[in-house]
Amino acid sequence: MAEPLPDLIQEIVSDSTPDDSATILSALASQDDTAVATLLESLPVEHRIKLWQDLPRDRKLDVLVEMRSDPREILIDATAETDWVALFSDIEAEDLLELMDSLPNRIVHLAYAELDAQQQRFFRAATQFDDDEVGHWLTHDLLVLPLNAKVRDGLRLIRRNVPRHCDTIFLVNRSGQFSAAVRLTQIFGSPEHVPLVELIEDNMTVLKGNDESTNASLQVQRSGYAALPVVDDSNKLLGRLDITSASELINEFYERQVMATAGMDEDEDLFSPVAKSARNRALWLGINLLTAFLASWFIGLFEATLQQVVALAVLMPVVASMGGIAGSQTLTLIVRGLALGQVSPANRKALMIKELKVGGVNGVIWAVVIGVVAYFWFTDALLGMVICLAILFNIVAAALAGVLVPVMLDKFKIDPALSGSVILTTVTDIVGFVAFLGLGTLFLL
Amino acid sequence: MAEPLPDLIQEIVSDSTPDDSATILSALASQDDTAVATLLESLPVEHRIKLWQDLPRDRKLDVLVEMRSDPREILIDATAETDWVALFSDIEAEDLLELMDSLPNRIVHLAYAELDAQQQRFFRAATQFDDDEVGHWLTHDLLVLPLNAKVRDGLRLIRRNVPRHCDTIFLVNRSGQFSAAVRLTQIFGSPEHVPLVELIEDNMTVLKGNDESTNASLQVQRSGYAALPVVDDSNKLLGRLDITSASELINEFYERQVMATAGMDEDEDLFSPVAKSARNRALWLGINLLTAFLASWFIGLFEATLQQVVALAVLMPVVASMGGIAGSQTLTLIVRGLALGQVSPANRKALMIKELKVGGVNGVIWAVVIGVVAYFWFTDALLGMVICLAILFNIVAAALAGVLVPVMLDKFKIDPALSGSVILTTVTDIVGFVAFLGLGTLFLL
Repeated sequence: MAEPLPDLIQEIVSDSTPDDSATILSALASQDDTAVATLLESLPVEHRIKLWQDLPRDRKLDVLVEMRSDPREILIDATAETDWVALFSDIEAEDLLELMDSLPNRIVHLAYAELDAQQQRFFRAATQFDDDEVGHWLTHDLLVLPLNAKVRDGLRLIRRNVPRHCDTIFLVNRSGQFSAAVRLTQIFGSPEHVPLVELIEDNMTVLKGNDESTNASLQVQRSGYAALPVVDDSNKLLGRLDITSASELINEFYERQVMATAGMDEDEDLFSPVAKSARNRALWLGINLLTAFLASWFIGLFEATLQQVVALAVLMPVVASMGGIAGSQTLTLIVRGLALGQVSPANRKALMIKELKVGGVNGVIWAVVIGVVAYFWFTDALLGMVICLAILFNIVAAALAGVLVPVMLDKFKIDPALSGSVILTTVTDIVGFVAFLGLGTLFLL
Repeated sequence: MAEPLPDLIQEIVSDSTPDDSATILSALASQDDTAVATLLESLPVEHRIKLWQDLPRDRKLDVLVEMRSDPREILIDATAETDWVALFSDIEAEDLLELMDSLPNRIVHLAYAELDAQQQRFFRAATQFDDDEVGHWLTHDLLVLPLNAKVRDGLRLIRRNVPRHCDTIFLVNRSGQFSAAVRLTQIFGSPEHVPLVELIEDNMTVLKGNDESTNASLQVQRSGYAALPVVDDSNKLLGRLDITSASELINEFYERQVMATAGMDEDEDLFSPVAKSARNRALWLGINLLTAFLASWFIGLFEATLQQVVALAVLMPVVASMGGIAGSQTLTLIVRGLALGQVSPANRKALMIKELKVGGVNGVIWAVVIGVVAYFWFTDALLGMVICLAILFNIVAAALAGVLVPVMLDKFKIDPALSGSVILTTVTDIVGFVAFLGLGTLFLL
């Protein structure tokens, strides 16, 4: 049984003698490449580089491919240029596609030169597509037969070699256009002389090279097949998207969403160098600072009011916070709906009405609760009324913004998972402060 | 080619004549069950129920299984008790396991009675495990042979029937204990008399029934196999976790994380009834209200200061916002690290130091920027200095809290993805306000 990750991290970080190193390396022998990649990502930089250097040379490339870009780049920088040739000795097009964005151009050329002619062709074909298109992530190990092949031909092909995650034979016509697929399991059970066209699968989804990769990956996951065929615009078979690649693309999609809520990307390194990490995060802090100053500027309009009714200043965070939370709940729901293709012009209005109703109900309830608390805290009925109205107004505005902001961003092709929350809280902050301080100016002065 | 989801939603929502209904139903015939489930989730409740009632009876159960719990429950409530028997006509244990939490107990018993004896056994075995354990999500379609079987036996078994996502034959001993697995592709290429034990896979991961389901699913995804064997404590073969189930479990895990950041769960319905949705979200709003009042209470301690220096009230949101954003960046990184098993006692200290350094760098930069802006805005050098120090202090505290809060929550087995952000922003709000107003009281009065 492979050793758990935390134990390995512990051993490596407390590693002191050369004997320890040997023990660690032998423990790694029973870990798969992804596990070793995850381990490397978990290590502080100096330990990470040391372990990388100690790793058997024939595993290095496979482990590197499994790592996230940022932690990977640390190891790439720590690898001497002369070592690359040895690492690339049995590199394939898929590996190079995964690594190319992290490698200096010179090293990419070096690796490309190590590919055989066929792999070079695969590599060039893949780079015709963006990395958010299926064509970039194809597997080229295929079982292909001509349309007129029989079960006998299928069996012969299967006996030679079946690639991983491959459960169908693709049938193509003379021009290499995809026609249909036959399940391997159909072939085992049938007499040798039966033409394969009699066994083809109905309704198998065929992907296009420029299909968006997350959606296409979801189709693979739910297809019930280990892979789906991918064709170009003229229906020529390009390759297949297998369930491993599909699952990795989907995991990356979700991780991007999770990290985007804090303005980071999925490649962020747990132990990135301080300068790099600070720079990565500074932009997001800067954008938020602008929005915070904007909110402050609006508060500044009410300086005179605040001076006279200091309780307003005390309660400001309550108004802003309730609007922000209510809005982010709506926002999160809509962002997920957009990502799944569930939110569209046809149901937008119905969604808006439902969210406004939910906002209305919660708005009334919490407005009353907060109004009562404020009344007792400051023994001021008018203040209670002012905050009550401001909360109600802000929660309803938050529901509106929670639907509109992501829908508009999506229309302008801006990722709502990334920019949605900062715009939303700017709206709810400003609406909340202006409503609260404005009503305060009207009723309390 | 299947019609895209937004078009279908459009057609259904604008559906007016019975002719339209027929067109829509024929369009659905080319959609897979997950697509229909996603479509149903995207529809306002009255359209959802109508489409559900129009759906061919033999698809209903399969579609229901693919839906999220909340939108599914709307359809379950709209189904007459007398209709269930027909829907359950070919239900399997896996379907019932997926549905049981949404169904009234009485209906679960009804469905259970429709299972055959073997499926009832599978169902009972699965319910021995919690739904976050692998044992709950097993597939029982297995290819199993005794340890002494030969290639010939393997071929005979394969010709009969190979289940979906099954690329190995499991070998068991006389007591039903799992011994090893052989790839189907190894069997095709070998002579009939070869014992299967000569072809077994080394290093195949064997899962335990009570393994945590997300981790186990990740192991399946990266194993290169279509499924991994699952055994009980005495190594008896229970079933297998296939890559489809694994992928669904991982997608759910990620969706839970995304939704948790807004205090919701992954089953939240786009069109849930207003009362239910308001209730779901009220708790989260309530918890946040408590923390907002706590922040307000701390501000209240400085009422006298605020009255004299109203600029402090104007700038309060800037201090709170910068701390909140910086902290949530650290938090998000650590929460991901915890979920991936990358953060452990061994690297916690190194992580903390790195985050404090990043916080220090960004703290100094933004503290100076904000200090200068405040100085020019209010032409008050002391105010500039006060906010400068408060920002620096709050960003560093945010880095500390961003590491400590999720680590502590994880230790107490509380999901840091859910509760982390609310606790973190409470800390950064309070630290920020107290630092800012406290320094203001010291220097500006």
